[in-house]
Amino acid sequence: MRQMGDRGLIQVFTGNGKGKTTAAIGQAIRAIGSGFKVGLVYFHKNPSKWKFGELKVLEDLGVEVHGFAKKHPDFYGGSSCERVRKECLEGLEFIENAFKESSYDMLILDEINISLRDGFLKESEILDLLEKKPKKMTVILTGRGAGDKLIEKADLVTEAKKIKHPHDEGEKGFKGIDF
Amino acid sequence: MRQMGDRGLIQVFTGNGKGKTTAAIGQAIRAIGSGFKVGLVYFHKNPSKWKFGELKVLEDLGVEVHGFAKKHPDFYGGSSCERVRKECLEGLEFIENAFKESSYDMLILDEINISLRDGFLKESEILDLLEKKPKKMTVILTGRGAGDKLIEKADLVTEAKKIKHPHDEGEKGFKGIDF
Repeated sequence: MRQMGDRGLIQVFTGNGKGKTTAAIGQAIRAIGSGFKVGLVYFHKNPSKWKFGELKVLEDLGVEVHGFAKKHPDFYGGSSCERVRKECLEGLEFIENAFKESSYDMLILDEINISLRDGFLKESEILDLLEKKPKKMTVILTGRGAGDKLIEKADLVTEAKKIKHPHDEGEKGFKGIDF
Repeated sequence: MRQMGDRGLIQVFTGNGKGKTTAAIGQAIRAIGSGFKVGLVYFHKNPSKWKFGELKVLEDLGVEVHGFAKKHPDFYGGSSCERVRKECLEGLEFIENAFKESSYDMLILDEINISLRDGFLKESEILDLLEKKPKKMTVILTGRGAGDKLIEKADLVTEAKKIKHPHDEGEKGFKGIDF
């Protein structure tokens, strides 16, 4: 495996502004451009909606994509909190295994901060997981609601701060922009 | 040309945090995934350094990439301010032409805010240019130093705010992460 640096960084993209997931995807493109292997694990996203946007392009570029807890009670209904927690824990298990096998140079944990914010995962569970990160793997965590201890543990943290968003004026999302 | 929505948005990614260019690139990937045509015009970046990261991947995906004012006096030396301004104006001319011909569904103007911040372009020149944007084209402007009037004109503005960055502790950039 080629190496991104002496040590891989823990990066966090949080905040209420647009550009967290897309910043992680841009990082993936940058890493791919340098010949690195990238994985993406997403939480709380409906793949039937998301799959046909950026995911297809990333998969075509060799990114391995896995989704967990694809339903979030608030978003889709029909899923109990216990079930969402169980699926989030399955996600952590998958990630732990990827750490063990050093499967990637970069692993994106998209919207995992939402699992934390909404109480499906405990901050300690995410911190314990990050302890097991191979030294040279870069891990990027996205989503609103990154906890203080996660921010403390991370090497790089950017808050995407909303200055202005068209949804404020009642516009709906656009295909190719928002999904 | 397929359409991204009834009207294309003017988006601005500014601020001192990591994730502005990468957010724009992530947007490009999302747009490509939906079948849209994307162009990227970059300012003040040395292509010999930048070319082999994300740009190659984007070009392979069909993104047309053009660079202007590739030297910035502060970064590389050997280029006069007059010359950098002249090259920035050539960039504006190129963009105006792309607007006229509706060449893209999405056009990324990477680091154009730096041209503004450092006085190579006037805010009025960028605002006048944006007046000529085809209604349905999305334009994304990145870089620190977006002016107040540009922010006022934009539909969507995210400030990437640095909470923590490893360079603060003296680490150098990593290949595949920072370039």
